[in-house]
Amino acid sequence: MKEKEILALNAFDPDSASSMDTALGTAVQRRLRSFGNASVLFYQEPIRMARAEGVYMFDVDGRRYLDLYNNVPSVGHSHPRVVEAVSRQVGLLNTHTRYLNDVVDTYAERLLATFPHEIDHLVPTCTGSEANDLALRIARTCTGGTGFIATETAYHGVTSALVDLSPSLGLPLAKDSPVRLVPPPRPAGDETGAVFARHVAAAFEDMKRAGIRPAGLIVDTIFSSDGVLADPSEFLKPVVEAVHAAGALFIADEVQPGFGRCGQMWGFARHSIVPDLVTMGKPMGNGFPVAALAVRSQLLGAVPEEVELFSTFGGNPVACAAALAVLAVVEEEGLVANAAKVGSYLRHGLLTLAERHPLIGDVRGEGLLLGVELIDEARGPAAGNARKVTEAMRERGILLSATGPAGNVLKIRPPLVFQHEHADLFLLALDEVLASS
Amino acid sequence: MKEKEILALNAFDPDSASSMDTALGTAVQRRLRSFGNASVLFYQEPIRMARAEGVYMFDVDGRRYLDLYNNVPSVGHSHPRVVEAVSRQVGLLNTHTRYLNDVVDTYAERLLATFPHEIDHLVPTCTGSEANDLALRIARTCTGGTGFIATETAYHGVTSALVDLSPSLGLPLAKDSPVRLVPPPRPAGDETGAVFARHVAAAFEDMKRAGIRPAGLIVDTIFSSDGVLADPSEFLKPVVEAVHAAGALFIADEVQPGFGRCGQMWGFARHSIVPDLVTMGKPMGNGFPVAALAVRSQLLGAVPEEVELFSTFGGNPVACAAALAVLAVVEEEGLVANAAKVGSYLRHGLLTLAERHPLIGDVRGEGLLLGVELIDEARGPAAGNARKVTEAMRERGILLSATGPAGNVLKIRPPLVFQHEHADLFLLALDEVLASS
Repeated sequence: MKEKEILALNAFDPDSASSMDTALGTAVQRRLRSFGNASVLFYQEPIRMARAEGVYMFDVDGRRYLDLYNNVPSVGHSHPRVVEAVSRQVGLLNTHTRYLNDVVDTYAERLLATFPHEIDHLVPTCTGSEANDLALRIARTCTGGTGFIATETAYHGVTSALVDLSPSLGLPLAKDSPVRLVPPPRPAGDETGAVFARHVAAAFEDMKRAGIRPAGLIVDTIFSSDGVLADPSEFLKPVVEAVHAAGALFIADEVQPGFGRCGQMWGFARHSIVPDLVTMGKPMGNGFPVAALAVRSQLLGAVPEEVELFSTFGGNPVACAAALAVLAVVEEEGLVANAAKVGSYLRHGLLTLAERHPLIGDVRGEGLLLGVELIDEARGPAAGNARKVTEAMRERGILLSATGPAGNVLKIRPPLVFQHEHADLFLLALDEVLASS
Repeated sequence: MKEKEILALNAFDPDSASSMDTALGTAVQRRLRSFGNASVLFYQEPIRMARAEGVYMFDVDGRRYLDLYNNVPSVGHSHPRVVEAVSRQVGLLNTHTRYLNDVVDTYAERLLATFPHEIDHLVPTCTGSEANDLALRIARTCTGGTGFIATETAYHGVTSALVDLSPSLGLPLAKDSPVRLVPPPRPAGDETGAVFARHVAAAFEDMKRAGIRPAGLIVDTIFSSDGVLADPSEFLKPVVEAVHAAGALFIADEVQPGFGRCGQMWGFARHSIVPDLVTMGKPMGNGFPVAALAVRSQLLGAVPEEVELFSTFGGNPVACAAALAVLAVVEEEGLVANAAKVGSYLRHGLLTLAERHPLIGDVRGEGLLLGVELIDEARGPAAGNARKVTEAMRERGILLSATGPAGNVLKIRPPLVFQHEHADLFLLALDEVLASS
């Protein structure tokens, strides 16, 4: 396990497996035996998780954890409406989209209705990685280009084509890669967007000098793995202009901010922009594997039929039933407004803690995707402290993680059913942990 | 819709949507409005499917179809054991693999036990495309090469990296692609393997002359999209040797033949070989999106930690619960043996039809993955007839499709719970359809 990942992702270090109590040690050894290098476990003492409900998870010993980490079960773990929808549909029909089925078309219409009218077509996939990979294929086809830009600490997925656009993994760019990386936007008041747009324009120019035709810019519109960057609103407007001026397309990766997390249905809405392509995934089915690409019809119409857009699992009736239930819960339980309201409360609570604890250098984000930057006495990144805080919070029964280029930003993204009382529990525990750090 | 696809995949032609009866026409228009170019529907009159059970599917009017097409619901549509497993686990815990959970490790152990001992590690993914894409990444890392070989009508998935290895899509190879395509094995008795191995060796040599280092050969071990090629058994043995002689790895894509379809648990077993990497998908969860890569531990151990092997949905507890139920049903209902037994019966029935119907040029395959090659009077491919037969069979309430380079091979791959009585229904209908062709 590389040091950065241990620091940033509070990952378990397999070398310490031998020092564990019998039951946990046995469970860890079992995992390592089957998955080897592909094992990725959280915490110095990984958790044997048994069940979860709402904002709480429970381990095999019945210990309760307040979940501020998991963004996938965004309408709450084991939401009865999603459970019912999946259980019903999986016993009825679970097939691909080559037959007509009402739930598939109903979901597509309901989902497309949440987008600006220009974005009017949907391509179902199974994972966010597949949606992003497909966005690249469509952008290549529509522009005739191959050059893509991402930010320096971006994460957009794990397919071969996405690895270069996911520098947070720590792999060097492939030789002759048509990818250019730009510094993530840095808070600079009204200049934030202009500065970022200049970086993007310069990267496209650099591409052209190397004989590479621009195809697109892909950004997570809340810049989650870049350390969470939300302000000022609308800072992406000049960036879209720079992308279009280069003849490229703007791809909004909404896997993190989408489905209400940031207090609006989509992260790009905060920027008053209309992307060319939008990808979404994780929270779409509350854990059921489903993802999609939404796209302007004139772009999709330009894609020749040989560019296969079909995927076996993508948009299957069970996936659509799960996703339809999620959308209904988001709307009926007012979770977008709840994310804004409780997110604001949580943010203010964190700002109050920041006044007392010099370890907190900044509190950023929007809705229920917040970043708390930890700094040392020289105001440099305090990644070691982020890991210590994460482990200490786990000891207190609270799950969170860390992110950002230096791994020193606490990543806070609870299920969207998070309430004031849960925020209070978290703030109290964090106050105590920071006091003893 | 390209002509080839209409012929081969009995796809619906959107231009004819206007001539449909009101309810169906409305449903089709609805699909086209949301999905545009990404709509892929079967049949000149697409089916509005409502439910499915065992080997039967039912449309919204209650009409019953015998399913000889769908390989995903391989233990039978809506199998109660899988439905129960999914329903139970989705209400309990549906999260990623960064926490320990018993069902994940139990499944991994059960699945790995079905492989030769050399293949001892598992990497869960969500789709077969993701598993194949990951196989390429691991092969590149382990060999230091970038050159891959596939067959000329192969299909291995839809990510950017897999498109070149999926020439059945009809896209030209990317400029400077490190991919080489070889003719699929052709029945040549004892020489079948040697001829195919020579093609593979020559392609690796061609690669090296272009300065490309070999990384791997990827084959579907039943050559499904190449028109189904199974005989003689063991013909892949000299091919594995040719691959290793070039310093490359052998990737067995078991998405089609895996999980018992061909009368053995894995398609490669028929060839008495041990692949370096094995990918699997479609039938693994009977429709629940789940896939995986199985690999020799010394290969996985050579992959640096930066090569991210984690996927959010891959191996989640619900996916593993579904897959564990599938494995249990396959074993307890003896579906591998059933595929061999009923497949053999079906094959003999088809050979009997071939004696009466000159349109049948060849009957190939193994277990419940059979190909029936249709030929014209000059013994050339009769793709138009394949489409006509597929449509006529649908009129008789039987679902099948076509495959192969010319789209003239009827593709027969029913759920593995298919019985003699279902084979009889199919053979009777096919006899009548061929008689009136």
